[in-house]
Amino acid sequence: MIKVIILGAGNVAFHLTTNLLKNTEVKLLQVYNRNIEKIQYLKNQTSITDKLTELKNADIYIIAISDDAISNFSSKLKLKNKLVVHTSGGTAMNELQSNSNKGVFYLVQSFSKERKVDFSKIPICIEAETDTDFKLLKKLAKSISNNIYPVNSNQRKSLHIAAVFVNNFVNHLYYIGHQICEEDKISFEILKPLILETANKITYLKPINAQTGPAMRNDMKTIEKHKTKLTSNQQEIYTLLTKSITKTYGEKL
Amino acid sequence: MIKVIILGAGNVAFHLTTNLLKNTEVKLLQVYNRNIEKIQYLKNQTSITDKLTELKNADIYIIAISDDAISNFSSKLKLKNKLVVHTSGGTAMNELQSNSNKGVFYLVQSFSKERKVDFSKIPICIEAETDTDFKLLKKLAKSISNNIYPVNSNQRKSLHIAAVFVNNFVNHLYYIGHQICEEDKISFEILKPLILETANKITYLKPINAQTGPAMRNDMKTIEKHKTKLTSNQQEIYTLLTKSITKTYGEKL
Repeated sequence: MIKVIILGAGNVAFHLTTNLLKNTEVKLLQVYNRNIEKIQYLKNQTSITDKLTELKNADIYIIAISDDAISNFSSKLKLKNKLVVHTSGGTAMNELQSNSNKGVFYLVQSFSKERKVDFSKIPICIEAETDTDFKLLKKLAKSISNNIYPVNSNQRKSLHIAAVFVNNFVNHLYYIGHQICEEDKISFEILKPLILETANKITYLKPINAQTGPAMRNDMKTIEKHKTKLTSNQQEIYTLLTKSITKTYGEKL
Repeated sequence: MIKVIILGAGNVAFHLTTNLLKNTEVKLLQVYNRNIEKIQYLKNQTSITDKLTELKNADIYIIAISDDAISNFSSKLKLKNKLVVHTSGGTAMNELQSNSNKGVFYLVQSFSKERKVDFSKIPICIEAETDTDFKLLKKLAKSISNNIYPVNSNQRKSLHIAAVFVNNFVNHLYYIGHQICEEDKISFEILKPLILETANKITYLKPINAQTGPAMRNDMKTIEKHKTKLTSNQQEIYTLLTKSITKTYGEKL
């Protein structure tokens, strides 16, 4: 049994806690949070604490707190010869300031507390300073998911940026689509199957081969017609993305 | 039985033909295409022709050809007192130049020949000049799908633009994410569950409430760190979409 302590009570910590409590290969020894109220619901299932001095003796300490707090928080941990990891996509391993062994345990998914998560399909990107620690993290990861990837800090930074494009920015385009529909009293329901199919397509086609639409066809007549209907902000985005698509496929011709 | 003739052999025509041949409420009387070779495969299942003078006597004539050919093609049809519709999201009903009754039968989905389509879930947007024709189109639509929407030409134009944002532009962001991953030898597989979850989320959350990420948090440190890793084209898109998200949520605070 791998002995694990989770530090934090945000979305990632919450879902990871839920998973590890049911995980037969892991003993969730303790959950720490600076505000004990948020983890009171766990008191019958594991040890809880709001004092770093009371941390138990575990194999892996998982810091699952907001990115910008990781460095400072980790500097307060006195856990020599222990493995301390964070779960952040946007934070290098070396931003951990503990005097312990360092590692990263990055779950590539967008979590929200209301939504149940199928952990078995979540890609887990791991990194460690030593082979021994890497193997330990891999063992933990495998007890949670079937998709484990070794990803170093430099790669993870890029991965995190790519995630901003395919998740945050994509959602913003959904928002703009929603806005345009509302403006003309069109049900956004009409677009949902298209949105799902667009996402599903890239599971079997490379995005470059899945592209369709007026920009790709360089259909200037349609493009100009579209622009007249948009607000200046929408128009700016339409123009830039159209230019980028035209350039992408122009270069390939 | 509604008697239907399909004119065209592109992706929409192909899938619609496949569906109508199996549809028990519709008689697919004939398929027309200017190049007969492309519809030879249908000769044992329905009448085929490449001559407009040989068109049979149907209730609905469905023009499923490329947007910019609709107007000119329809002007060649001599089908007085018949219902002639097109399937284009980006084309107004009145761009039909036939002397017949006009309508629109717009299937909101991205079709490719290789990919099987579940028609029962495809939203169909219909428009007609008269109540009688509208009812006829509705009957046809209902024999194909459970999601029927009355959408006029002005609304359909907006819907088509919204589809460009949530389909074409979204796919281009997938492409950029893919590019960033390739650059650092990261498997794009890692992002697929996130992409699917992002799309799934808007089936139960409004896009405005599903937004996450550094732009929404106005996390300038992360945003600046990200920008240094991007090509100038990627950077331009990153900056504009970040600005648009910041503005969206800034206004709401």
